[in-house]
Amino acid sequence: MTKLTNALFFLLFISLALSVNAQAPVWTEIEPGIWKAAVGEPETYDLLEASGSEPGKEALAAMGTAEFPFSEREISAEIIDGKTYLRFPLEKKEQIYGFGLHFQTVQQRGRILRLHVDHYDGEDNGRTHAPTPFYVSSRGYGVFINSARYIDVYAGTAVRKESKNPPVARDRNTDENWTPRPYSDAVEMLVPAEGAEIYVFGGPGSLDAVRRFNLFNGGGCLPPRWGLGFTQRVHRLSTAEDVKKEADAFARKGYPLDFIGLEPGWQSKSYPGTFEWDKGRFPEPGEFVMDMLEKGIRLNLWINPYVSPASPIADSIARYTGSHTVWAGTVPDFTIPEARRIFFSQLKKDQADIGVSGYKIDEVDGYDKWLWPDVATFPSGHTAEQMRQTYGLLMQRYSTEMFRQRNTRTFGLVRASNGGGVRFPYVLYNDYYDHRDFITALINSSFAGVLWTPEVRASETGEEWLRRIQSVVFSPMAMINAWSSGTQPWSFPGVAPAVKEMALLRMRMMPYWYSEFAKYHFQGIPPFRAMNLEEGFAAGPESVVQSSSLEENPYEEAFTREVKDQYMAGEYLLVAPMFAGEKSRKVILPRGKWYDFYTGEYVGGGEVITVSPGLDKIPVFVKDGGIIPLMPPLLHAPAQGEKTDLEIRHYGEKPGRYMLYDDDGVSYDYERGEYSFREIIVEKNNGKEWEGRISAAEAGKPNTVGKVSFTFMTEDDELR
Amino acid sequence: MTKLTNALFFLLFISLALSVNAQAPVWTEIEPGIWKAAVGEPETYDLLEASGSEPGKEALAAMGTAEFPFSEREISAEIIDGKTYLRFPLEKKEQIYGFGLHFQTVQQRGRILRLHVDHYDGEDNGRTHAPTPFYVSSRGYGVFINSARYIDVYAGTAVRKESKNPPVARDRNTDENWTPRPYSDAVEMLVPAEGAEIYVFGGPGSLDAVRRFNLFNGGGCLPPRWGLGFTQRVHRLSTAEDVKKEADAFARKGYPLDFIGLEPGWQSKSYPGTFEWDKGRFPEPGEFVMDMLEKGIRLNLWINPYVSPASPIADSIARYTGSHTVWAGTVPDFTIPEARRIFFSQLKKDQADIGVSGYKIDEVDGYDKWLWPDVATFPSGHTAEQMRQTYGLLMQRYSTEMFRQRNTRTFGLVRASNGGGVRFPYVLYNDYYDHRDFITALINSSFAGVLWTPEVRASETGEEWLRRIQSVVFSPMAMINAWSSGTQPWSFPGVAPAVKEMALLRMRMMPYWYSEFAKYHFQGIPPFRAMNLEEGFAAGPESVVQSSSLEENPYEEAFTREVKDQYMAGEYLLVAPMFAGEKSRKVILPRGKWYDFYTGEYVGGGEVITVSPGLDKIPVFVKDGGIIPLMPPLLHAPAQGEKTDLEIRHYGEKPGRYMLYDDDGVSYDYERGEYSFREIIVEKNNGKEWEGRISAAEAGKPNTVGKVSFTFMTEDDELR
Repeated sequence: MTKLTNALFFLLFISLALSVNAQAPVWTEIEPGIWKAAVGEPETYDLLEASGSEPGKEALAAMGTAEFPFSEREISAEIIDGKTYLRFPLEKKEQIYGFGLHFQTVQQRGRILRLHVDHYDGEDNGRTHAPTPFYVSSRGYGVFINSARYIDVYAGTAVRKESKNPPVARDRNTDENWTPRPYSDAVEMLVPAEGAEIYVFGGPGSLDAVRRFNLFNGGGCLPPRWGLGFTQRVHRLSTAEDVKKEADAFARKGYPLDFIGLEPGWQSKSYPGTFEWDKGRFPEPGEFVMDMLEKGIRLNLWINPYVSPASPIADSIARYTGSHTVWAGTVPDFTIPEARRIFFSQLKKDQADIGVSGYKIDEVDGYDKWLWPDVATFPSGHTAEQMRQTYGLLMQRYSTEMFRQRNTRTFGLVRASNGGGVRFPYVLYNDYYDHRDFITALINSSFAGVLWTPEVRASETGEEWLRRIQSVVFSPMAMINAWSSGTQPWSFPGVAPAVKEMALLRMRMMPYWYSEFAKYHFQGIPPFRAMNLEEGFAAGPESVVQSSSLEENPYEEAFTREVKDQYMAGEYLLVAPMFAGEKSRKVILPRGKWYDFYTGEYVGGGEVITVSPGLDKIPVFVKDGGIIPLMPPLLHAPAQGEKTDLEIRHYGEKPGRYMLYDDDGVSYDYERGEYSFREIIVEKNNGKEWEGRISAAEAGKPNTVGKVSFTFMTEDDELR
Repeated sequence: MTKLTNALFFLLFISLALSVNAQAPVWTEIEPGIWKAAVGEPETYDLLEASGSEPGKEALAAMGTAEFPFSEREISAEIIDGKTYLRFPLEKKEQIYGFGLHFQTVQQRGRILRLHVDHYDGEDNGRTHAPTPFYVSSRGYGVFINSARYIDVYAGTAVRKESKNPPVARDRNTDENWTPRPYSDAVEMLVPAEGAEIYVFGGPGSLDAVRRFNLFNGGGCLPPRWGLGFTQRVHRLSTAEDVKKEADAFARKGYPLDFIGLEPGWQSKSYPGTFEWDKGRFPEPGEFVMDMLEKGIRLNLWINPYVSPASPIADSIARYTGSHTVWAGTVPDFTIPEARRIFFSQLKKDQADIGVSGYKIDEVDGYDKWLWPDVATFPSGHTAEQMRQTYGLLMQRYSTEMFRQRNTRTFGLVRASNGGGVRFPYVLYNDYYDHRDFITALINSSFAGVLWTPEVRASETGEEWLRRIQSVVFSPMAMINAWSSGTQPWSFPGVAPAVKEMALLRMRMMPYWYSEFAKYHFQGIPPFRAMNLEEGFAAGPESVVQSSSLEENPYEEAFTREVKDQYMAGEYLLVAPMFAGEKSRKVILPRGKWYDFYTGEYVGGGEVITVSPGLDKIPVFVKDGGIIPLMPPLLHAPAQGEKTDLEIRHYGEKPGRYMLYDDDGVSYDYERGEYSFREIIVEKNNGKEWEGRISAAEAGKPNTVGKVSFTFMTEDDELR
């Protein structure tokens, strides 16, 4: 009898095992360390199709391959009820990050999300400007679902009967250990389509997985140099004269400025738009743009893509628009070539061709109450849901393409993106305007394949103004957005000198920022990124727990508490913004030694420190051996061909190495090899005195480096 | 040329007309004034299937037919992308109500909802305990989508290019009349399935459409008489002795009490549950239940349906449970007969058979973080989504069935319902506990085919306590829920006498409440309902606008502002609850004449009045000619066969007529005709003196009426 039972159980086991196997996706390594599986019948229109992204094969090859991070049988994929059911395993202490641009949380294990492009409305529920279906594990891998659908995510919340590590049932009446959220061993996802492509990105580290994801999407964007300067957006009804005056005021007062953003009033009508200049406010657009360029100021134009009946393209584009209107404007179906041709011809002829540098693409995110409903139809046959998930991608893609055809880089703002959008030269933004949460978004942008600006608008006090300026200066776009407030950098006289100093610091650091963006492009490393991607920050379970006090043991803390107010900026900098009202703050330093950015003094390593930097400083720390190349505090980014001197700073006691990027700063010629990385080395000669050197400029390649000097920031007697 | 153009336009028109026709659903009048259309391939498992509801054909026949409220060509239905796209027209001034149990809004035009069974989380977005896919128009019709899916609703928000009344595009730069929400002429819905049954309910009035919907679902529930008495829920770990003491305290202090609710601690384990008595706290359940019944007190037991491994049914039900657990308990698939047999046999044997009167069915609503995920599967093959939308229906249906097999009515609490659940003897509740919003939910319950209790738990002050007691007394279930707070009616000594008076008023009004519930059952009229269903409240556009002041012109106001803090209770009463902190409030009186419930004095009609009733009164007003039958202030509902005297009150200057319902109060024999409606008439003899009479008791039918007296509340010299 026992034998029979055993035999039956064995048969049951085999059949279960087989049925599990039958659901296991088949993985193919399509690039080194990147595996793909097609589940069911993947749709032809997906995030990669919409974005048109192509893998950066050379860069991926340079990374080499990796271990497949799962036992393949642990992954399950099934088509049920016309939907794709996915399950990926989680280990006990594993943490996961990603699933888009959240504002209040970094670690996502334990969350339930519906990934849905939308304006962020104060809750991390998956409705956000870039709900990228990509997550990164603390175990050093990433997973991407290439679907332009609203994906439901159960990130370590759903508990299966068949779990290998099921939670124990407890009696809530009497058991104090009862929990409303029992342990779950999987990420489960529901893709509302009869199939999907899924991708796994290997490590070994979490940053490696992120790099593979970014490179797979073509690598990060490389902005033009001017894009990394300072930008001011003016009042929505500003005239050409107002704009010129604004630029002149910046110059007169000595504040840097590279581009000015014009808001809806540049158009003859807006919401919906005509996509042509308002003849009253801008009677001679061509002349105006040229005048501004002569001042060293580029122009960026606000648009949203909804077409006014008064637009010159209204009639010709009508047949290529969706069934529903947005603010009574038609919604172009940009998946149709003719729709793109009509729309972008208007932008090109009227704006790009006269020298406009880029756009701020608004309202491609949400809300539901504003955009087309999910019952809308589009002439291409793509559904409203697919269009919602990809509209930001499409606008980025084809506007970039327009500038690319002129061999001119652009750098702009966009309110929605998604997986596949990594390479687009756009920075995300919104109206949410919570300083702390803006920093959390900046952190999460590194998992979502997007850039984010914690823009400055209005402020209650000079203190808040300066604190916000400080953090936007350490972000992808140093912007004051004064479309409504009319604020200017000097709006709070008490802090105006400190604001100027910060803005000039932004300019001085341009060689660093530009090189870091080049690494975003060529190596996939996000220039602004979560501490969780930094080696030595989240130590593995093998790290010795010195104390049960979270204060004294940041590694443990990194696992158990959200770190969402400090981030890495480029290869060497750790930025810990101050918020209005704070006199001091805690900073978690990863393992290794860290130095004050301003003084070069040693501040600590592998510990939590408290800093009280005063109002005029944002706490910034440099990794041991860090090198920061600076240029003089110019008011505009160097023009094409302009040479600038370099002051190269070295921090700490380790020798330093840095790859300084250089190209023409404006064109796409770098894609044809017209660029160089110059190696900077700082080390001790005979082990005694610090000495720095930079490799020679490559013959025939753009070279913007003038005189080079070295500053060794950390005194020997400060070394420990 | 002109002729040719005309001909072409004609052809275009014809083909457009044909293509619209091709999408127009085909309507069949399935009951008088009720039309059905099948769109695509409706699923076999839907709300009506889950609830097992059958139309009340006789009652519907008695209502007669109605006009189909649309031009059929205006309705569109299409299957696209595996989903059902529906569109119903809206007229310019039309208002719509319904789409479930909202807590903050009554009028739904302009809202976007996803109908999803869930705990209400503070936002009217469609996630609620009863997201019934039914809406009612101010034009006097209703629409029901019979689908157990998460339906997306654009209730007058989506704007089509092809609209007959398209909004005008405006320039936001300069036009002050620009609006972010342009006019929409339709309700559009997305049902994520390849078909759905849709129903239209005719009027002529909005209440008629609601009645047809309710009767189509079998009519409202008829609770047992004791269900309309007072109920107290005790602390979760109460013992049998504690419960007896509680009942004795009520009796000793003279507070009415009909049933006591036991919370999770009655079970040996909970969350997940064993569904058997805890032997420590309840050593002799059978004896205990009998003792309580002898005191005139019934018992109601808290459960949620998730099965503990320690339950006696754990093993036998295992194969009929879903793939995922809830608090480590299995989730029975109640669409499988064997699952029901196992589960309800346990409840019957252990509880119903020893005299337990009913259940409080918790956590069949949400949250997502607690319940099974949408990726769960169930052995019946029904999807997690379908189960989520119907689990509350299934629990209500089969628990009711269990009692019905004993020919015993039950009356309990449930946390989730949906379309089809009208006839179930359950009242919805939640933990949200906002007094004002609880009243809004009570109002909305009348559009959702459910009952709602604004239960009383704890209170900050005696004032709040009394105000909450006052409104719960004018609701479907007069309940104190003290599972956590341990409060009792006399917990605030300062207001204890006033609380007692309210509780006794509840008992005195039992003949009225019982008759009104009978009308819910036999005529489909919600006993507690929105003002918008009251004739003379929302006047049509033809009503004379006397003033542009909203204060002075309530009809106009009813169109333009939410009325969500007053409601109708039964045929004649208008209830306007007071909230803690208020000394006075405004009340909108519909057209006609209205009288103070307590004094019979005339208060107004067709106007906004301000009342300052003092702490011990809740403002209640009686319609002209209103009749309210009262019984003596007993501490328990009359037992089966017990006769009680009637005091019949008449209000106002119109003659009165009332249909008094009577039956045995406990069994289902009324379904076999064992009931009577006795006609009460109040009129002036010779046009001079008020005189009342009641029709004779029907021979052979239950008769609980003892002596009858009449009180004419309104003095002649008060008449106007």
